[in-house]
Amino acid sequence: MSLDSMFLANSIAIVGASRDPKKLGYTILKNILDGGFRGKIYPVNPKLDEILGLKAYPSLLNIEGEIDLVVIIVPAKAVPQVMEDAGRKGVKCAIVISGGFREIGIEGEALEKQVLEVARKYGIRVLGPNCQGVNYTYNNLCASWPLLAKKGAIAIISQSGTVGAAFEGWAVEEGIGFSAFVSLGNKADIDEVDLIDFFSRDGNTRVIALYIEGVRDGRRFLEAAKKSSKPIVVLKPGKTERAKVAIQSHTKAVAGRDEVFNAACKKAGVKRVDSLIELYDFSKALAYLNKLRGKNVLIVTSSGGSGILATDLLESIGFKVIEPSSDFKARLRSMLPTHCIVDNPVDLTGDANAEMYEKVLEIAIEEPAIDALLVIFGDPIAGACEVIDRIRRKNDKPVVVCYLGGGEIEKIESREMHSRGIPVFPTPERAVSALKALG
Amino acid sequence: MSLDSMFLANSIAIVGASRDPKKLGYTILKNILDGGFRGKIYPVNPKLDEILGLKAYPSLLNIEGEIDLVVIIVPAKAVPQVMEDAGRKGVKCAIVISGGFREIGIEGEALEKQVLEVARKYGIRVLGPNCQGVNYTYNNLCASWPLLAKKGAIAIISQSGTVGAAFEGWAVEEGIGFSAFVSLGNKADIDEVDLIDFFSRDGNTRVIALYIEGVRDGRRFLEAAKKSSKPIVVLKPGKTERAKVAIQSHTKAVAGRDEVFNAACKKAGVKRVDSLIELYDFSKALAYLNKLRGKNVLIVTSSGGSGILATDLLESIGFKVIEPSSDFKARLRSMLPTHCIVDNPVDLTGDANAEMYEKVLEIAIEEPAIDALLVIFGDPIAGACEVIDRIRRKNDKPVVVCYLGGGEIEKIESREMHSRGIPVFPTPERAVSALKALG
Repeated sequence: MSLDSMFLANSIAIVGASRDPKKLGYTILKNILDGGFRGKIYPVNPKLDEILGLKAYPSLLNIEGEIDLVVIIVPAKAVPQVMEDAGRKGVKCAIVISGGFREIGIEGEALEKQVLEVARKYGIRVLGPNCQGVNYTYNNLCASWPLLAKKGAIAIISQSGTVGAAFEGWAVEEGIGFSAFVSLGNKADIDEVDLIDFFSRDGNTRVIALYIEGVRDGRRFLEAAKKSSKPIVVLKPGKTERAKVAIQSHTKAVAGRDEVFNAACKKAGVKRVDSLIELYDFSKALAYLNKLRGKNVLIVTSSGGSGILATDLLESIGFKVIEPSSDFKARLRSMLPTHCIVDNPVDLTGDANAEMYEKVLEIAIEEPAIDALLVIFGDPIAGACEVIDRIRRKNDKPVVVCYLGGGEIEKIESREMHSRGIPVFPTPERAVSALKALG
Repeated sequence: MSLDSMFLANSIAIVGASRDPKKLGYTILKNILDGGFRGKIYPVNPKLDEILGLKAYPSLLNIEGEIDLVVIIVPAKAVPQVMEDAGRKGVKCAIVISGGFREIGIEGEALEKQVLEVARKYGIRVLGPNCQGVNYTYNNLCASWPLLAKKGAIAIISQSGTVGAAFEGWAVEEGIGFSAFVSLGNKADIDEVDLIDFFSRDGNTRVIALYIEGVRDGRRFLEAAKKSSKPIVVLKPGKTERAKVAIQSHTKAVAGRDEVFNAACKKAGVKRVDSLIELYDFSKALAYLNKLRGKNVLIVTSSGGSGILATDLLESIGFKVIEPSSDFKARLRSMLPTHCIVDNPVDLTGDANAEMYEKVLEIAIEEPAIDALLVIFGDPIAGACEVIDRIRRKNDKPVVVCYLGGGEIEKIESREMHSRGIPVFPTPERAVSALKALG
């Protein structure tokens, strides 16, 4: 069944809404309000008449209008009854934030089963329990925390609230934003496969970033990933035995054999990464850069050292920092100051400016032997953003930008680039990682 | 000969000082002034009487007082004569910022030789030419750019201005600062070996961070590194053939055989890293954390996922995320809420607070089987800094801190920790990298 009622909800009830700023029932209601959600909002709390300026209802059954989505933040034992009410009210989706289910042992497991039975009876899709909710920026719907609202192209699906929150935080701080954050929790019903299906069809999402500790059904995962029209990047620990033990304690997930998962990823074209930063950088690259057609890279830099670091890294992972053609070199030589190094990397040296970059890049992007440009700004170079914005429109070769050592000007330029959908990477190695993502 | 005259200079002449804000002769004089240098400052420029409020001199020979250090920013051809003047004036150290020497070809090479001959005749030590100068924060001496002044414990020696500037920028932004930044340039005279010697004896430096593209004399490097009382971290590209070519063009350095350099590093106890971020993280860890006595790590976290990522990474590089003793577990069990996971990682879960961390860490730091603590704050946990500051004083086991997903509170706490000399790492993988540095 479709998850539209969750992400595109027009009306939301928050069961367990609270006036106490220390409680999640307050935080989530406030984030939905402050996030600018435009649909109807119904706080439910039998003890209160009004919360944060909104009329409060004693139960879901007292609400007159239709309800698309219910967010549940009451003690675990009360959740099955809330689900019953939701079912009778015709609700299609529920997010169960509350903990105290499968993750605490046998008693919780029984309770989780009960919730699921009610859900099946009424055809309600359930996210969680024991999760951090959903943030879908294009519906101004932050049924989660922290409140982050910057719209972007990456959907983050995470079995860890913190991993998701850290990712969201970076995306917002850099100004690239995200389309959605979904916290999986115990995955009683909705899992990564359902979400891959949804975001594959979501017009606002260009990349699906996944942190998972286990896959429930390998075959379904493989099929969904194969079918996905969007690239998928996945961070999945569990290579070592100790991590597998910790995963069992954390989400009761079975990590499975790592080689099997690896093989499945390769088969389905899923990009598997090894670290949180790589999950972020790969997603950023795939969301905002064109595909790579070949392995030949030209580096243009104002910092010799950074160019050399990039060269070493690219060559060691199978890229080619090719010797440019003599014609190409001659053209560059004729228009650059003599102290510039015309080779690959093209080193414009420390007194480079935006105009010099543009001249070189205009020629380089048209050079048939070159598949991608790695542009390193290694000094405070004003106007860098404008140059890249013009160059990237010339054709569909990827232009990867690295900016470092540029002080305040770097910050201004990087922010401007991110706001225009030009990803910037802060070190040569992270820029190389972006190229790896595209390859 | 000692480099004290350079770093501990009491009087500086800037030859080529300028009033034009676009020129380096302006920037450097201004940075020396604004950096708060307390000694005498003599601008030298035959065309001006006064620059930035200081009396200007037509040549070094017109200055009456003694001069410890000369900074030279005149066209390459004029440098030998300036060196002659410096020699006759009894100057002991010169920093040649000017480019146009060996890096531009045969003509420049001859000029560099000439400068060196004058230097040898008078016993002047020369940094550069073609370099970005020196910043020694403990003498408030920024004869370089950008102007950065935050005092810290890491000396940065770099054959690339940008690599050094990026490193400085991060250290200042995080609030840990640095003791010195030295730009090597063409290494006509002073090289990494001289600087290792100096910083090994410098009371303000605890770690030497090195970016180099080649070592002139492998044996001398090995000896200096062995003798150094401070840990040395080195980033040296040149593993691939293309990078070796680029190194030749950049600094005319010979990268040499990578295996040979690798072996030398191992022999001398030098930590070799593969990326710029690793250079930074290793340096930070070695400057501010105690040595590691063994490989057994206990992870304490509020984020299950982050703890699992750290476990996987630690175990895959030879650390042991050991099963804690049953006595240890029983003690924790008795004082923690039932939903916390008492194992390794100890998972305090999302509602953890500083008090819970402190209780656990107080016991953990005394546990004989545990050699190091990896503490992950994966939520907005106020008071984290105070807890770590108390725990790290209990004994000499390293306490590595990771903070992520904590929004504004994370920023405040991280800044406070850095200001107290407690390094904080922003992802599980970078915290693991810090432990690797200590091992």
